[in-house]
Amino acid sequence: MPPPLSAACPWLQLQRTVRFGDTDAAGVMHFHQLLRWCHEGYEESLQRFGIAPAALFPTPQHKPEVALPIVHCRADFRRPLVVGDELGVVLTPTRLDPSGFEVAYRFVLADEEVARGLTRHLAINATNRQRCPLPDAIQRWLEAAGLGAGVQPV
Amino acid sequence: MPPPLSAACPWLQLQRTVRFGDTDAAGVMHFHQLLRWCHEGYEESLQRFGIAPAALFPTPQHKPEVALPIVHCRADFRRPLVVGDELGVVLTPTRLDPSGFEVAYRFVLADEEVARGLTRHLAINATNRQRCPLPDAIQRWLEAAGLGAGVQPV
Amino acid sequence: MPPPLSAACPWLQLQRTVRFGDTDAAGVMHFHQLLRWCHEGYEESLQRFGIAPAALFPTPQHKPEVALPIVHCRADFRRPLVVGDELGVVLTPTRLDPSGFEVAYRFVLADEEVARGLTRHLAINATNRQRCPLPDAIQRWLEAAGLGAGVQPV
Amino acid sequence: MPPPLSAACPWLQLQRTVRFGDTDAAGVMHFHQLLRWCHEGYEESLQRFGIAPAALFPTPQHKPEVALPIVHCRADFRRPLVVGDELGVVLTPTRLDPSGFEVAYRFVLADEEVARGLTRHLAINATNRQRCPLPDAIQRWLEAAGLGAGVQPV
Repeated sequence: MPPPLSAACPWLQLQRTVRFGDTDAAGVMHFHQLLRWCHEGYEESLQRFGIAPAALFPTPQHKPEVALPIVHCRADFRRPLVVGDELGVVLTPTRLDPSGFEVAYRFVLADEEVARGLTRHLAINATNRQRCPLPDAIQRWLEAAGLGAGVQPV
Repeated sequence: MPPPLSAACPWLQLQRTVRFGDTDAAGVMHFHQLLRWCHEGYEESLQRFGIAPAALFPTPQHKPEVALPIVHCRADFRRPLVVGDELGVVLTPTRLDPSGFEVAYRFVLADEEVARGLTRHLAINATNRQRCPLPDAIQRWLEAAGLGAGVQPV
Repeated sequence: MPPPLSAACPWLQLQRTVRFGDTDAAGVMHFHQLLRWCHEGYEESLQRFGIAPAALFPTPQHKPEVALPIVHCRADFRRPLVVGDELGVVLTPTRLDPSGFEVAYRFVLADEEVARGLTRHLAINATNRQRCPLPDAIQRWLEAAGLGAGVQPV
Repeated sequence: MPPPLSAACPWLQLQRTVRFGDTDAAGVMHFHQLLRWCHEGYEESLQRFGIAPAALFPTPQHKPEVALPIVHCRADFRRPLVVGDELGVVLTPTRLDPSGFEVAYRFVLADEEVARGLTRHLAINATNRQRCPLPDAIQRWLEAAGLGAGVQPV
């Protein structure tokens, strides 16, 4: 039997604790914080995979040729989340076409899926903002994630 | 010819200026801020319509019987937005069923649609978290918005 | 008797409504949101005074020569703020030296001061990050604010 | 020679990576995010020390008798921080009086202090909002932190 996904791709299995500032006066996580968690999870996954953040994200010293703006995002909320909840975050990145990919995020609490998120990214030339091929680093990350998914139990 | 929507329902036509803290190191609005703008627009619209925020949102002194958590949200981003951009925000609220509604948000810059958002809300009893009918105030707001839409040019 | 400050400098007298996403599970405004409100107030004041945001804040198309990073900030919280509270925000900008200024923010609810904030800014060359003179636009804003303060009742 | 602080109190030595959404169009961390990091560090430290978040922070199911609102905060920024910077965060909690304490935060990058933060908290009865003694859990955390500080090299 193949190893479970968590062993195959530990860089797609993250953790996140709900903090007090993530909540609102209804006592539960305020919805748009989840989208922030998604992007932070995407960045953490790339970093754990071995891609330096500055290779993909601009700093004052270095602006990568290719930007990866989000063209679509969405989220579904199934259970209220409260301060201190320790969530598992499972990422599923998928290549869509030569210049696009998306990342699905499952948020899990005590083996139950409590929320889902999705971000869809488009590769564009950072100067002229025209569509362009995905950066090599992202291609490697997407390919490795696909291989990891390929060895899941059938 | 009937009056345009803006005259019929001024409380569905808001404005928002992109602020420096809304941007990221790519120089443009960071995606999840748009969802924050959506919810703030929803609150502002209710208030302009005449519904006191404390009638729908909890404070330490008063917890409304019905909560309206977001069960789904999404957004599409068509143009990069930069600091100082003065956006029009047009809300289209729609009743979905006796305990649910959604609000669509169009963000417009110089007559061009630059982004869209959507939030879907479910009415639940704040104590037992069971589905329940929409509060009267929300019903009135939804109905008035529907009437406003009804007088758009055909 | 001279006119009150509000008549002299309307661009230093702003308004802000507490929104649901500004609160936390204690039911009140979460502290660090106030610092966001401060910076947004500073941007709005400059804009109302007649300074285009892109003259001072970078966009992908235009990077001003001088950046104005915050080197210090602080806030004091005197009363809990809840969703829907409509606050007056009074700004008091002060020049500190040829390359520095600060802005004090008073948040007022029903004639009572409920919070204070302060941001201290340093003018630096955006390329080499060395201290430099304040931009002309900021100098004009600071000077006009000082004149406005000068005509307060004695 | 006594052990260094890090060995004595690992729950006061945290880590934080700067994320893309923490930056603004100047390419560096946007100032008020640091205050969010401070509070999240305070929560993480308590949790690592063994205090369940729900013992101190409210959820819809449980509202602690004592709230610990922030009455003052401040921050100093010495170096620009960019996406991917991996910071050490060192907390120094101090009891001020029977109902108050503060936490100082040092942010360190490659052995250099890049920023400082401070939050000052007041214990109040969550119902009548009157000043009251600090909760036992906070007292234990403050005392243990003081002992840790006591074994620093002289």
